[in-house]
Amino acid sequence: MTAAPSLRASRRAVLVGLIGQGVTPSLTPPMHELEGARHGMHYVYRTIETGRCSPENLAQLLWAARTMGFDGLNVTHPLKQAIVPLLDELDTSACRVGACNTVVFDGERAIGHNTDVTGFGSAFDVSFGDSPRERVVIVGAGGAGSAVANALAERDIAELVLVDVARDRAQELAEQVAALTRGSVRGASTDALPELLAEADGVVNATPFGMAAHPGMAFDPVLLPEGAWVGDIVYRPTDTALLMAARARGLKTMSGLGMAMGQAADAFEIFTGEPADRDAMTQDLKELVVAEAASTPGMTGNRGEEHP
Amino acid sequence: MTAAPSLRASRRAVLVGLIGQGVTPSLTPPMHELEGARHGMHYVYRTIETGRCSPENLAQLLWAARTMGFDGLNVTHPLKQAIVPLLDELDTSACRVGACNTVVFDGERAIGHNTDVTGFGSAFDVSFGDSPRERVVIVGAGGAGSAVANALAERDIAELVLVDVARDRAQELAEQVAALTRGSVRGASTDALPELLAEADGVVNATPFGMAAHPGMAFDPVLLPEGAWVGDIVYRPTDTALLMAARARGLKTMSGLGMAMGQAADAFEIFTGEPADRDAMTQDLKELVVAEAASTPGMTGNRGEEHP
Repeated sequence: MTAAPSLRASRRAVLVGLIGQGVTPSLTPPMHELEGARHGMHYVYRTIETGRCSPENLAQLLWAARTMGFDGLNVTHPLKQAIVPLLDELDTSACRVGACNTVVFDGERAIGHNTDVTGFGSAFDVSFGDSPRERVVIVGAGGAGSAVANALAERDIAELVLVDVARDRAQELAEQVAALTRGSVRGASTDALPELLAEADGVVNATPFGMAAHPGMAFDPVLLPEGAWVGDIVYRPTDTALLMAARARGLKTMSGLGMAMGQAADAFEIFTGEPADRDAMTQDLKELVVAEAASTPGMTGNRGEEHP
Repeated sequence: MTAAPSLRASRRAVLVGLIGQGVTPSLTPPMHELEGARHGMHYVYRTIETGRCSPENLAQLLWAARTMGFDGLNVTHPLKQAIVPLLDELDTSACRVGACNTVVFDGERAIGHNTDVTGFGSAFDVSFGDSPRERVVIVGAGGAGSAVANALAERDIAELVLVDVARDRAQELAEQVAALTRGSVRGASTDALPELLAEADGVVNATPFGMAAHPGMAFDPVLLPEGAWVGDIVYRPTDTALLMAARARGLKTMSGLGMAMGQAADAFEIFTGEPADRDAMTQDLKELVVAEAASTPGMTGNRGEEHP
């Protein structure tokens, strides 16, 4: 006799969304919905295309999400910095980077997190946790490079070098993360890459090179010594030219899938308070990337959008 | 290998909500979510408490729902009339009554329906479709009375009499629905009830009497002739004093469950385009009413909120 009320109680409803520009093709919504279904939840993840969005518009969107009963939001390009002053509280991950990709509504409070940072960090630990890390190079000092640098700065790296075509931008980011590391951190220009890579234990590509829209490699892994490792943040396609060249040399590699899955898994846990099944989410993401590539011939890149 | 993408495609996500004052205890959300689950959907139904709400606030809420990816909204007291001028299109059900309880977003257009009218109408057809209906009395000419009068005016009733303590209000409603009926329709005061009921084939209570907060009956069914029928719009509790007294006299009755289920089933079909399982929804509603009464001792009424 109580089937209906108990069914009502047993299936939790979770409502979240992604706001930003060009969000429609994102694979984060299906990753969340599939994980929610595994938890037996009614999990609805909406994409909200904002186009260009003034701070006033962004404040309205935040009000709309809260008023309409959203549990939280993912935030992507170009709103990750702009949303920060609109929040009531920042997790350390978001506070340090000055950027937020995950907002959770806790009663009247909107709390910001940055799961690009935590997602890259946990993916790194899984892939390279036991690898040497005296000297690490990050190529690209934009939004993704900032998340990678913030994650690595907390991971006992003696010498972290941030490289960008714009040396100033690399130096600014170095100064920003300097307080997090017990080692040294500095900016450098791409001109210095040959000598930097020759002495590196590992390197992370945080540029768009490798996406369909940005073919090629930001650097040639032939410059790395034997035994070095190579990480990439690009995950569409999963096998970038960089990673294939690195594997051909016998180097250990990590694709962008780990970060893409990690940011989604961390956000899922923040939204729901329940542990994400990271192996299943990785498998889902692999299949989604393959299905997407199959359904859009000639369109296998990230299309330029950032995580998530 | 394609489990994830096919799972993604097979489970449809539907997002709707209820806006109005005092909506939190409504049983419409669980009715919808249970029906959505039967259809294999991720169906999320949020309650959005508006309190008192200016037209500007209401326009903002409509914008928020559309922007955040809602498929539609139910609308309840005190917003059913106020929302009408904000919509792009009105179904005849909403247009005639000048009130809307269901909004569906169809691309850029917001289309209003009134499933109080259609819900009462279909419930009436099921219960009294074959019963005599030469002379029918509706007691109560407020929002619920308006929905009932609009539904019955289209159902070949020779003489429809609308009764209210405020005779003017009854007369105004009679003039409003006159164009819909081929029979006669007029307003009357409650003073006239004894003679009106003595000659009636059936009567509908559209007042709040019978709810826990409004104990008693709007009229005594002892005034009705043998073979007359009695309908009630109150459904919390399901067995009102009126219906119990009518059944004690051997009269045919219809509880408010039919209208409450019907408005939800019609809205479900408008939101999703899929046929609702009305038998299952009726059973769910019965169980929800029982569960609610059991969990809140002494609180078995409608708490004054309107349908849905």
